[in-house]
Amino acid sequence: MRQSLKKIAGLIDRVIANDAFPEGIKPDYLKNAVRDYPMRKGKRLRPALVFWCGTLFDAGAEDRLTYPAAAVEIFHNWTLVHDDIIDRDDLRRGEPSCHIRLAGDLKKFELPEQECKHMASSFAILAGDLQQAWAVDLLRRSTTRGVRQDVVSAMIANMLHLGSHELISGEALDMELSMRPLESVSPEEADTMIDLKTGALLRLAAETGAMAALQTDDPETPEVVRIGKFALHCGRAFQMQDDLLGIYGNEPELGKPIGNDLREAKRTPLLLTALQLLPLSGKKELISLLHQDQYSPEMLRQAQQLIAESGAKTLIEKKIAELARSCEEELQIFPDCPARKYLQEFAQYLTTRAY
Amino acid sequence: MRQSLKKIAGLIDRVIANDAFPEGIKPDYLKNAVRDYPMRKGKRLRPALVFWCGTLFDAGAEDRLTYPAAAVEIFHNWTLVHDDIIDRDDLRRGEPSCHIRLAGDLKKFELPEQECKHMASSFAILAGDLQQAWAVDLLRRSTTRGVRQDVVSAMIANMLHLGSHELISGEALDMELSMRPLESVSPEEADTMIDLKTGALLRLAAETGAMAALQTDDPETPEVVRIGKFALHCGRAFQMQDDLLGIYGNEPELGKPIGNDLREAKRTPLLLTALQLLPLSGKKELISLLHQDQYSPEMLRQAQQLIAESGAKTLIEKKIAELARSCEEELQIFPDCPARKYLQEFAQYLTTRAY
Repeated sequence: MRQSLKKIAGLIDRVIANDAFPEGIKPDYLKNAVRDYPMRKGKRLRPALVFWCGTLFDAGAEDRLTYPAAAVEIFHNWTLVHDDIIDRDDLRRGEPSCHIRLAGDLKKFELPEQECKHMASSFAILAGDLQQAWAVDLLRRSTTRGVRQDVVSAMIANMLHLGSHELISGEALDMELSMRPLESVSPEEADTMIDLKTGALLRLAAETGAMAALQTDDPETPEVVRIGKFALHCGRAFQMQDDLLGIYGNEPELGKPIGNDLREAKRTPLLLTALQLLPLSGKKELISLLHQDQYSPEMLRQAQQLIAESGAKTLIEKKIAELARSCEEELQIFPDCPARKYLQEFAQYLTTRAY
Repeated sequence: MRQSLKKIAGLIDRVIANDAFPEGIKPDYLKNAVRDYPMRKGKRLRPALVFWCGTLFDAGAEDRLTYPAAAVEIFHNWTLVHDDIIDRDDLRRGEPSCHIRLAGDLKKFELPEQECKHMASSFAILAGDLQQAWAVDLLRRSTTRGVRQDVVSAMIANMLHLGSHELISGEALDMELSMRPLESVSPEEADTMIDLKTGALLRLAAETGAMAALQTDDPETPEVVRIGKFALHCGRAFQMQDDLLGIYGNEPELGKPIGNDLREAKRTPLLLTALQLLPLSGKKELISLLHQDQYSPEMLRQAQQLIAESGAKTLIEKKIAELARSCEEELQIFPDCPARKYLQEFAQYLTTRAY
């Protein structure tokens, strides 16, 4: 899998770096902002999912999959740019986030600090808007690489449905859950949010790959539905594992402080289930550990222990194992081939990242 | 023209009100925000431009033009939603702007004021993102009303180029000009900004109508180019007239205070030309009249007189007259028909709004 991933990442890097869409965007710092996240070397997991789900159905489909894979990656990037404004995140993949970098670009205009921040966020909004257009345009241009026009139209529809409609609703639900009192949020609501916010984009990647490979304009084609379900389950498992890592993870490996999720009282199924299962005294104790400025190792241990004692940790681990099994089953029906092997390894990787 | 405009507005109102795209968006206040601007009864000038430019080429094309017209209107609306966040405008068509209305919706969460504002702007960003997807989806669905698939693909490409690429660059240039020292901005730069920010969307409306009517996938088709040029000239003339009204207009008719453009030192070709033409003393006097909190009738008269004396007013009026003539000429080549008459009246209306 690693080798295939590396090959795909290299291809996507080149396609994005050479794509003409950003040319002509004015001013230059906006053009640079549009290219910034897409050019940061990420793992390119979503494009890989496009390729693997596509070559699962047609090993010779690689050329047809190039633009769809790049489109899904650019689509992912605009959501990150807008999310970082919304979440006021200063960092993205270890570098300044889009609006922070733009604030640096705008220094030459010598604006008052608040004004500079506002203008930087404003340019970042526009950068995300342009990336959204870029993603649709890349998908549209799949026709130049052999994808039929009616298939492209259906892929665009699917991108607008899963990518925009569902994913943005997921982001909005995430914001809403964070504004509501913790105790009014059920684990089921958090599950719905995860399906929309994380699952929809992985589904989009998988289904886009399948549609381009099968040359079908029907997203209800059984193979497309099956591979979409696989991706949705991967997304669920990935997010649950991420939530576990956010509490039980190894800080240097995770790349961010372990206390963050507790500080934000992040509405994860893990935390919500723990609060539901704990007796009143334990619940009170866990709540008292949320929203702290600093987390000592002792406080973290206490929170970790409470969540484990509640049974929530085991329950979430069980769910992840079930999802991993379901992913395995979804793939079993397909003939043995390199793509299937990569997808199996991909699902394993997502569901077993160590903590 | 008024009657045709009214008929088109009624049709577009219905299409937008009944369109299924916003259904299922969560939470409800985000769904409402997505529908809010599009449902406000505007003049629907852009959809009318789609219809008139389309029926100019094929009087029987009305059905094919419905979705493209609605798409251009929704596209216009997302740019307004994001612009209002960027410009911190509290009002739009006499009602609270999108992010202000959302701040009202979020009151029930009892957030601190600053936090509520941030969240409201964040939801408004997402509302605009969803409208952007809605616009592309409407255009895509033109195939259900008889537009050929390859034509639709080309119309989408044109929307992404003129709508996203050019228009967003225009908005960004507008922001940049406002940050730069007034004296570093040339009238030519303001002209470029206007072509991108105002002209591109009118061109998009005109070319989209022409392409759907002619069933051509080539935006370089001479008729499409000609009608696009007509729309670009309309846009230029409209903006220049708007700038004149911003200084010489009649406040009750204009619906906004006359001093606004002077307070913001708005980088209009009118103001920039005046500063270029005035002798040093007059230039200093005009500059001293910018950025004031309040404008007395005396101050307004002074500014009006300086700009007139510089010759800039006459020069801009001359340019508008030239553009009106050019619009007339662009249309002359087409056979006499109701659509041509409406377009002539439309151009006249844009270029002769009274002050």
